[in-house]
Amino acid sequence: MEDSLTIAKEALAAAENANFVANNLWMLMSTVLVFIMHLGFAALESGFVQRKNVVNILFKNIMVVSIGILTYYFIGFNLMYPGVEGGVIAFGGFGLRTMEGAGDLIEYANGQYSYYTDFIFQGMFAATCCTIVSGAVAERVKLLPFLIFCVFFVSISYPITGYWKWGSGWLDAKGFYDFAGSTLVHSVGGWGALAGAILVGPRLGKYTKKGIVPITGHSMPLATVGVFLLWFGWFGFNGGSVLSADPKMVSLVFVTTSIAAAAGCIGAFIVSKLVYKSYDLGMALNGILGGLVGVTASADGVSVVDALLIGLIAGAIIPLSISFFDKMKIDDPVGATSVHLVCGIWGTIAVALFGDYDDGIGTLGIQLLGVGVVGLFTFSFAFLVFFLLKITVGIRVDKEEEMIGLDIGEHQAVAYS
Amino acid sequence: MEDSLTIAKEALAAAENANFVANNLWMLMSTVLVFIMHLGFAALESGFVQRKNVVNILFKNIMVVSIGILTYYFIGFNLMYPGVEGGVIAFGGFGLRTMEGAGDLIEYANGQYSYYTDFIFQGMFAATCCTIVSGAVAERVKLLPFLIFCVFFVSISYPITGYWKWGSGWLDAKGFYDFAGSTLVHSVGGWGALAGAILVGPRLGKYTKKGIVPITGHSMPLATVGVFLLWFGWFGFNGGSVLSADPKMVSLVFVTTSIAAAAGCIGAFIVSKLVYKSYDLGMALNGILGGLVGVTASADGVSVVDALLIGLIAGAIIPLSISFFDKMKIDDPVGATSVHLVCGIWGTIAVALFGDYDDGIGTLGIQLLGVGVVGLFTFSFAFLVFFLLKITVGIRVDKEEEMIGLDIGEHQAVAYS
Amino acid sequence: MEDSLTIAKEALAAAENANFVANNLWMLMSTVLVFIMHLGFAALESGFVQRKNVVNILFKNIMVVSIGILTYYFIGFNLMYPGVEGGVIAFGGFGLRTMEGAGDLIEYANGQYSYYTDFIFQGMFAATCCTIVSGAVAERVKLLPFLIFCVFFVSISYPITGYWKWGSGWLDAKGFYDFAGSTLVHSVGGWGALAGAILVGPRLGKYTKKGIVPITGHSMPLATVGVFLLWFGWFGFNGGSVLSADPKMVSLVFVTTSIAAAAGCIGAFIVSKLVYKSYDLGMALNGILGGLVGVTASADGVSVVDALLIGLIAGAIIPLSISFFDKMKIDDPVGATSVHLVCGIWGTIAVALFGDYDDGIGTLGIQLLGVGVVGLFTFSFAFLVFFLLKITVGIRVDKEEEMIGLDIGEHQAVAYS
Repeated sequence: MEDSLTIAKEALAAAENANFVANNLWMLMSTVLVFIMHLGFAALESGFVQRKNVVNILFKNIMVVSIGILTYYFIGFNLMYPGVEGGVIAFGGFGLRTMEGAGDLIEYANGQYSYYTDFIFQGMFAATCCTIVSGAVAERVKLLPFLIFCVFFVSISYPITGYWKWGSGWLDAKGFYDFAGSTLVHSVGGWGALAGAILVGPRLGKYTKKGIVPITGHSMPLATVGVFLLWFGWFGFNGGSVLSADPKMVSLVFVTTSIAAAAGCIGAFIVSKLVYKSYDLGMALNGILGGLVGVTASADGVSVVDALLIGLIAGAIIPLSISFFDKMKIDDPVGATSVHLVCGIWGTIAVALFGDYDDGIGTLGIQLLGVGVVGLFTFSFAFLVFFLLKITVGIRVDKEEEMIGLDIGEHQAVAYS
Repeated sequence: MEDSLTIAKEALAAAENANFVANNLWMLMSTVLVFIMHLGFAALESGFVQRKNVVNILFKNIMVVSIGILTYYFIGFNLMYPGVEGGVIAFGGFGLRTMEGAGDLIEYANGQYSYYTDFIFQGMFAATCCTIVSGAVAERVKLLPFLIFCVFFVSISYPITGYWKWGSGWLDAKGFYDFAGSTLVHSVGGWGALAGAILVGPRLGKYTKKGIVPITGHSMPLATVGVFLLWFGWFGFNGGSVLSADPKMVSLVFVTTSIAAAAGCIGAFIVSKLVYKSYDLGMALNGILGGLVGVTASADGVSVVDALLIGLIAGAIIPLSISFFDKMKIDDPVGATSVHLVCGIWGTIAVALFGDYDDGIGTLGIQLLGVGVVGLFTFSFAFLVFFLLKITVGIRVDKEEEMIGLDIGEHQAVAYS
Repeated sequence: MEDSLTIAKEALAAAENANFVANNLWMLMSTVLVFIMHLGFAALESGFVQRKNVVNILFKNIMVVSIGILTYYFIGFNLMYPGVEGGVIAFGGFGLRTMEGAGDLIEYANGQYSYYTDFIFQGMFAATCCTIVSGAVAERVKLLPFLIFCVFFVSISYPITGYWKWGSGWLDAKGFYDFAGSTLVHSVGGWGALAGAILVGPRLGKYTKKGIVPITGHSMPLATVGVFLLWFGWFGFNGGSVLSADPKMVSLVFVTTSIAAAAGCIGAFIVSKLVYKSYDLGMALNGILGGLVGVTASADGVSVVDALLIGLIAGAIIPLSISFFDKMKIDDPVGATSVHLVCGIWGTIAVALFGDYDDGIGTLGIQLLGVGVVGLFTFSFAFLVFFLLKITVGIRVDKEEEMIGLDIGEHQAVAYS
């Protein structure tokens, strides 16, 4: 008797540990996958800009991920997570809190992952919002002011709105739903991108009296590499947002995410061909991203057919939205506002239309409220920071530098030689 | 007593769950790895084509993976898997069946992975067979007819022959063995590539009265990135085909796969140097792929030295096979028929020569039968579809378009600017 | 009673198996991540060399990883691991020993991973040391002598010094600490790089009477892709060096590794700007790598703030070290000696300054001893092999070939057409 009880207890402890290890392992692998999305963004954005601005965009991208991780450690993580329930601002001091002893680890996050795992997974997400901005203001923004903007955006703005939902703040209490961040990550980045694109103004020669002049990217292979890597990383972005390795949920998320991405490609393909009479690679690539952004809010709670519709519509939106922003003379070299802002909003609304969640969760009203308040806060914050930088140090390179390119202007270097 | 029984049962359930979670996790990670092989193919193929056809090949590759996932959802998965044992065609209706409740999940696939995991892992494989074709017909095939071919090939042809073995159909009943798809994936793609290359004809200026004119790829770095990513993804392609995370089997597969890839590189290196007096990067890259394709049928059942020999021979085959197809005036810009068809056949035969399986499994006779019937069915199917497209809408761009390149011709775009 | 004992035992076995499977899975995923570092190196090095030498460096990189895996199988693994404790040379015969039966697997490596997992994880590490050398001698070294050097370096030199610490040899017995290889991998590669760079001599036109002529890399996007992939792979390089999936340790390693990489970027950024008045992308990229190399020796035993300081200093070292080697007229086209040798030494010393290990482990004296003896052995070995090759077959291409480039000279090919 003694014996069987001892063995049973030992077995139970070992089994609990195994579950903990496997769950934590998935969160770590998701971290690795989300990390490589930063290369995806770097490749996509550098592919979509002109040859003369490639070093600059690459430099910004490696700085943004580095700044993101460091500021998230010092400020962002504590500003986003350890708040009171239902609050507006959480603030838990500076730096990473000490990790509990090994014995307490299983208590943390319902035994799903360790404290450090939580930090590094969330930290990889944080920097994303700035990377989205960098594409929209590419080819004319000044390097240093942009990096200053990033420090404020990633360490203050992103964690505050993130706390509202994911940190159990007031939006969460109201029933707002955003599974992996159509709003909290993508449209946040998109609002920053919009504010930046407006304040920095369009590139020289983009909008002329004779009409809109297409300025094509310098390397489509690089852009394609970027999109594939983003899709690749999205398995961790969405799959890791299950916050455990639960086979049923994670595999559902894998399926909805992939189906939406594929449908986004097809949606953009069809609309490009019908409306613009062209098999446009750039549109199809952004269609994939649109599908991914669109399904991100509801990847854990829609059927496969729903995911297909969400992605298809997101992809179809892309060419129309890009055309719309061009008509508004808001110049966005990589289409970041269309992909992340417009499809992010669409995905957040899709939660109400397709999502299968508990009563009072993700209703149309609360989803629209979430889109609105997060948008209002983020756009205002980003606009204010960019505006203050504009009237002080300036945010745009001078005409001559823009003409010769930021690689020579800011870096005295060329991307290819 | 009561107590220890309760705890023992709880521990057993927790332990079974942990095994389920870990196994499922490996299948999901394998899915992610197989997914990125599509970027590998896109990079490889775009690197090996001329600068003027890069947008076109990239466009085809993102369309193929999207079409593959969607059609596999609607048709392929049910056509491949839920058939009767020993049959010729399996057909289980359209769309993805509903996932059982969480409680039943451990019953599925012997408790190794969830239903959705099964679908998405298999779905990532499916699109591969079309991607292989796209390389062989590159630089002159018409976009839309090619995409139509892909829809039929991936949703009908691939699942039917796949069912014969992996869906427990008649070839499986006879003892045919193909661990991860030297035949069922690679030579299937290779037969489609051969049919396409024959019907679409060689590129203009490739075979002239003065002899064979080499048309070199536009970017060797891109091709090299592709091969490394394919090797990377093959850890999931072969490793995931264990269908569990069994440490002994998966680690053996990792070793045999890597050793064969490395030996394939050396094999192609030696033959290139001895026969063609050159350190040829393209050959060495295809040698790696040849080694990988070669070991795919038997990676779970050969010794390390056997894997080395299989890879070495596969690599050595590559330069000879590429030279052979050129002599036959079958133009294949990326060497897909040599890598996937020829080395796929070699790998399937190698099961009989080196494999350590149960009696009656993988004998030379049954392996040759499998190679033959899968080849006959697939080549006929692909030839018929391409032929019907050829006599109706046409499958080849006109001469002028081929000269200026498909990027301008089909997409009004350039890859680099 | 009988019942509960039976169930308890069954549960315990299942739980132990689940832990084994999860641990082994992490080691396999780490293997995959370390593998892709070879693509990272290939991309980084080919990006940093001139357009005319790209095929050559890519060819070397795929050969090196292939040679590395094969020789590690035949010689390296047994020369590194199954030795007596405290010894100087371990030698356990040729080839991979047979894997024990499934029943014994849990006994191996304290039930953490299988024998084949051990081999393939270690095998992926081994080739790294040669890849580091290939960057430093790029653009002028002869292909075949370099490959011969690699065979000796990876199959003899690397395993001998590796055994001293990781194989429980004499340095381990003295208390030397090197968690994941700041010394045993990176500075070993760096010493080889230094020996090679000295003996092969600087590139033509690099050091002239008028001063140092910068020879810029041909593709900054390729170099950036390389650095992101190296960071990506480092999660497996450092994370896998925990040798289990222990959530506490692996997640700590993820955090320290990422923080050091980010801080390395910032450190190089600051010093480049202050000292050289430039936002230098190449320096920032190498700063990331410097941070990663620096934290590699102590990623499991430092606090987050310590990791930040280690990385920041490593990054700051990079521009100064690159400048120093240039003043010494030691020409290293990719900065491999600065990144791997100098930051490797710094990281090994940082163990003594920041590390939290048991008494007598990693003291400053023993760390310096380790740096010294490994350096002395490796530099001597590499120098001798390069020297013997130099006086026999020669290690440098002739002037004409160097001028037209090694792609034409060695491969009769061009990277781009």
